[in-house]
Amino acid sequence: MNRPLLTQASRPLTFEIDAVNERGEIVPTAIAGEHPLTLYVDKQEIVTLMTLGAAPEALALGYLRNQRLLGSLAEIAAVQVDWDVDAVAVTTTHGRGIEACRIEKRTVTTGCGQGTVFGDLMAEIDDIRLPGDAVLSEATLYGLLEAVRHHESIYKQAGAVHGCALARGSEILMFVEDVGRHNAVDAIAGKMWLDGLDGGDKIFYTTGRLTSEMVIKTAQMGIPCLVSRSGLTQMGWEIARKLGMTMIGRAQGKHYLLFTGEERFTR
Amino acid sequence: MNRPLLTQASRPLTFEIDAVNERGEIVPTAIAGEHPLTLYVDKQEIVTLMTLGAAPEALALGYLRNQRLLGSLAEIAAVQVDWDVDAVAVTTTHGRGIEACRIEKRTVTTGCGQGTVFGDLMAEIDDIRLPGDAVLSEATLYGLLEAVRHHESIYKQAGAVHGCALARGSEILMFVEDVGRHNAVDAIAGKMWLDGLDGGDKIFYTTGRLTSEMVIKTAQMGIPCLVSRSGLTQMGWEIARKLGMTMIGRAQGKHYLLFTGEERFTR
Repeated sequence: MNRPLLTQASRPLTFEIDAVNERGEIVPTAIAGEHPLTLYVDKQEIVTLMTLGAAPEALALGYLRNQRLLGSLAEIAAVQVDWDVDAVAVTTTHGRGIEACRIEKRTVTTGCGQGTVFGDLMAEIDDIRLPGDAVLSEATLYGLLEAVRHHESIYKQAGAVHGCALARGSEILMFVEDVGRHNAVDAIAGKMWLDGLDGGDKIFYTTGRLTSEMVIKTAQMGIPCLVSRSGLTQMGWEIARKLGMTMIGRAQGKHYLLFTGEERFTR
Repeated sequence: MNRPLLTQASRPLTFEIDAVNERGEIVPTAIAGEHPLTLYVDKQEIVTLMTLGAAPEALALGYLRNQRLLGSLAEIAAVQVDWDVDAVAVTTTHGRGIEACRIEKRTVTTGCGQGTVFGDLMAEIDDIRLPGDAVLSEATLYGLLEAVRHHESIYKQAGAVHGCALARGSEILMFVEDVGRHNAVDAIAGKMWLDGLDGGDKIFYTTGRLTSEMVIKTAQMGIPCLVSRSGLTQMGWEIARKLGMTMIGRAQGKHYLLFTGEERFTR
């Protein structure tokens, strides 16, 4: 079942251009869209994200949540996207915007491989408890990989994007693609937040690599099982171990490598 | 010829851990390192980058250059890495650090897909002129792809990293890998800056996708030809066209797609 996360404010996701191949032939080629989206909170400019544009509201909220710039849904009065000015405006119920100290900390770091709110991140994962009673069977894993494989995607058409899926068992609940894998994660986090979904019985799938930030964001969503088609880094591995997360990489077809959290996994 | 960009301050690049595969076998698996590296300028904390750790000094300088936080090599007195505290300290000749206004602008954006100094970026590319007389032949392209294929790399051992190469013709001058493709680009930019290398007669190769930031950083290095194994986004394409850059994607073996700057390319 297809469940792409698209909103009313979605931009066109692919464009067609002409390229020339090695035989000198003109090849009409679908390429992924990439748009700047400037996020404002109570009229204060926070960040500009380069995004595919499928789910800008969810991305805005998820970004704010994962960067810990806003703490509660109750703080949010409205989210409004205006592509005429490439902007998404979040209005809070209290009108006080983002606390100055949080912005200041963020100046130090953001992003994937280009800055991360590292000190705060490492401190906060100490407080995260992932459910010990969640289970993941190999059959479920295979079912999920199959569901992902069949899912319609921009990647199949145009490449150049990363995809993430939130699943319950082998059923995909949400599927998001974006230029950057962190945007895709944030969009899912934003949608889960809006929908009040608990992560404890879910699985998170990503095409992206399992780096420290990917693992931390998954933990922040309360999800104990993380699956990727790609590989992992040493820090991603260490943090997953510390959190007791079940992390599987290089997962495709019938192949996978189980790296951490073996206690939840049954073959 | 192998030319990995490694410095004295390089960290161990791979680690070996045990994973369990679908047959229940324990598989010793090499994974890429990932370390936080906090960049200071005149004792002022700027950003924390998650890096493979191969070329921290070059990464620090290239980051500062590509983020336009420092303008001239003459400003730099020293670059000192201290892995005991996961830090690299840049000392300027004037001791005034980064101008406050530049830091403030940067709070708005940094990174790949998670913020970019967008407004400034788009304004500055208007001033970039790439050499019109550079040429790239198909034979040279194939030679470069072959050289990349043969190059020893962490990717071949451990996956999970992106690689970039600076080439003159089909000869690789520098080769850098990092967890994030932008770190790899910045490290090459930093090394070029230090070595006083001009980009006008060079080719830039990356395993990463050709997004707007990748194209802009290549242009900032003055390099007119950009080649990637991966795909591109619409904004990457538009900016390459605007800059008159020769951009080739999906390049592997004998296959490629020439997207922009056809006038420099000869088959």
